[in-house]
Amino acid sequence: MKQDELIPLLSKINSRILHQDSPDVSLIPCSFNPELSLASSTDFFTPVSQNPYNQGRIAIANVLSDLYAIGVTHIDTVLMILTLSTIMPTDARDIVTSEMIRGFVDGCKLAGTECSGGHTVHNPWPLIGGTASSVVKTSLVVRSDQAKPGDVLILTKPLGTQIIGNLALWMLDDNRWSTVVSKLIAEDTAVRAVEIGEQSMMRLNLNAAKAMATVGAHGATDVTGFGILGHASNLAAVQKENVDFEITALPIIKGLVPLEKGVTIDYRLTKGYSAETSGGLLIVLPAEKVHAFRAEMVKCGEPELWVVGRVVGNGNKRARILDNIDIIDV
Amino acid sequence: MKQDELIPLLSKINSRILHQDSPDVSLIPCSFNPELSLASSTDFFTPVSQNPYNQGRIAIANVLSDLYAIGVTHIDTVLMILTLSTIMPTDARDIVTSEMIRGFVDGCKLAGTECSGGHTVHNPWPLIGGTASSVVKTSLVVRSDQAKPGDVLILTKPLGTQIIGNLALWMLDDNRWSTVVSKLIAEDTAVRAVEIGEQSMMRLNLNAAKAMATVGAHGATDVTGFGILGHASNLAAVQKENVDFEITALPIIKGLVPLEKGVTIDYRLTKGYSAETSGGLLIVLPAEKVHAFRAEMVKCGEPELWVVGRVVGNGNKRARILDNIDIIDV
Repeated sequence: MKQDELIPLLSKINSRILHQDSPDVSLIPCSFNPELSLASSTDFFTPVSQNPYNQGRIAIANVLSDLYAIGVTHIDTVLMILTLSTIMPTDARDIVTSEMIRGFVDGCKLAGTECSGGHTVHNPWPLIGGTASSVVKTSLVVRSDQAKPGDVLILTKPLGTQIIGNLALWMLDDNRWSTVVSKLIAEDTAVRAVEIGEQSMMRLNLNAAKAMATVGAHGATDVTGFGILGHASNLAAVQKENVDFEITALPIIKGLVPLEKGVTIDYRLTKGYSAETSGGLLIVLPAEKVHAFRAEMVKCGEPELWVVGRVVGNGNKRARILDNIDIIDV
Repeated sequence: MKQDELIPLLSKINSRILHQDSPDVSLIPCSFNPELSLASSTDFFTPVSQNPYNQGRIAIANVLSDLYAIGVTHIDTVLMILTLSTIMPTDARDIVTSEMIRGFVDGCKLAGTECSGGHTVHNPWPLIGGTASSVVKTSLVVRSDQAKPGDVLILTKPLGTQIIGNLALWMLDDNRWSTVVSKLIAEDTAVRAVEIGEQSMMRLNLNAAKAMATVGAHGATDVTGFGILGHASNLAAVQKENVDFEITALPIIKGLVPLEKGVTIDYRLTKGYSAETSGGLLIVLPAEKVHAFRAEMVKCGEPELWVVGRVVGNGNKRARILDNIDIIDV
């Protein structure tokens, strides 16, 4: 088999190649009861946080997000995927692993589910993630293809987590910090940004999924590896009507925009392509339901959400970012 | 957290720590219909075969085995866990990865299921495995705790796969082969042993699960990381009656016994502790049902199975290997 045949092969199999998520969760009709489906999704990666407990919480939030994006609010079970790093000193490895497990299990509890098994092997790099599964009533799954002209796009977490992961590292690198990064962001702003970013990645999309299930939505995806525009494009492409999605605003963690170029690569954050880890849900809502959706989120103690765009007619099932985009500091 | 607190923590979470499987699959009652359960299991590891296609087949056979061990014969779906090795030359890596995927997907087809998603990351070592899930009628799951005195223990694959994986490597090492290994096993016997072992690891435990579902069993486990005695001990420990399991025979791939010591470590193969990869099912059957079970297996074209022990009363829920054990060359 030639090398260039591998990528399409992986595309068929993966819900995420490297750091790129498809919006799809596996949804399989139950063999003896077509009213039920088995929803499942798997995800794992190397740590993005310097704090192993937070990393465990981020890992489970990320695993569950695909199910939340189709409106599943009850997770039947989670299996953990874990590796024990062979290149870390044993003492440090055991502390890091224990803390990651503790965060992961706590996240399961917050989701009202349990980690009922899993698998561990030795591996050079520490990996953590899992598989989440639920038996669901097929009719209650939020269909992703119902967008209508006049609908609005809302986002439930701010953008910028790819830079956050790197910023935490840059702050530990005295030379890089003093010569480059500190000229682009103040220290207290950087500390706050990392804190906001980690709390955001740790937060489950459960309340957003519940609000969506309550008020009804015309489609949704979680925002992860492709960035907001990538996932908006994927969602636009599967619509039944000939609509386009227009992104009009980008809520971004405060202080990150000056970092998108000039430190290492161009993250294309303000172009909508910067990868997110455990990002929010991007939800297509009938305009008249935004108020009710916001009320549900406020009720759950999650008041922050942003109207980031709109659905227009006579389109080609594409998504684009408008030129005069509104950058919202979060 | 101290280092020695990690292992019990992992034990709770893992269905397999390193190369050790527990007999348990996750079996969670469906939240809105207690007559249904969600059965799921996850497993992944570094290659044990020199042939990447075979490795893919072995990986999926191993993933599915936990579900087959509880009599589940219909697998609703499989998600693939895969890493792209960063330490292999890209060309070789892509061929190896493609072939592993091909084997994995072919194995899913043989199981009558599909790989409906998964996740891939870069990682130094190539890992492959997955999660298998099925919605099952709870009443049809084979209970593992029903062993009665007079029952017999049968095994559906021969033992020795841990040595097989190493033997294939030893045959590629001219110095080790000529100075040590060739003095313990003839070349044609070694070639045959590797062939028999790989075919055995690639074989699904599906027919054994179907035969078990048809004739009824008093318990079962797959034989993997703990070796036959380890898994027999785990199964004995969960019995309702005060029984013991006595292992009276070990079917071992021909030529491997002289290799169990003296090449590298003592594998303790004839003590029942050598780890198996994608091993057979160890099934507790009422004695009068052995004939019917064998007839079902013959019907499926899998005539080989061995009576390897018996269940005795007045016991302590332990398993042991008798002194005058019968070694069966396979």
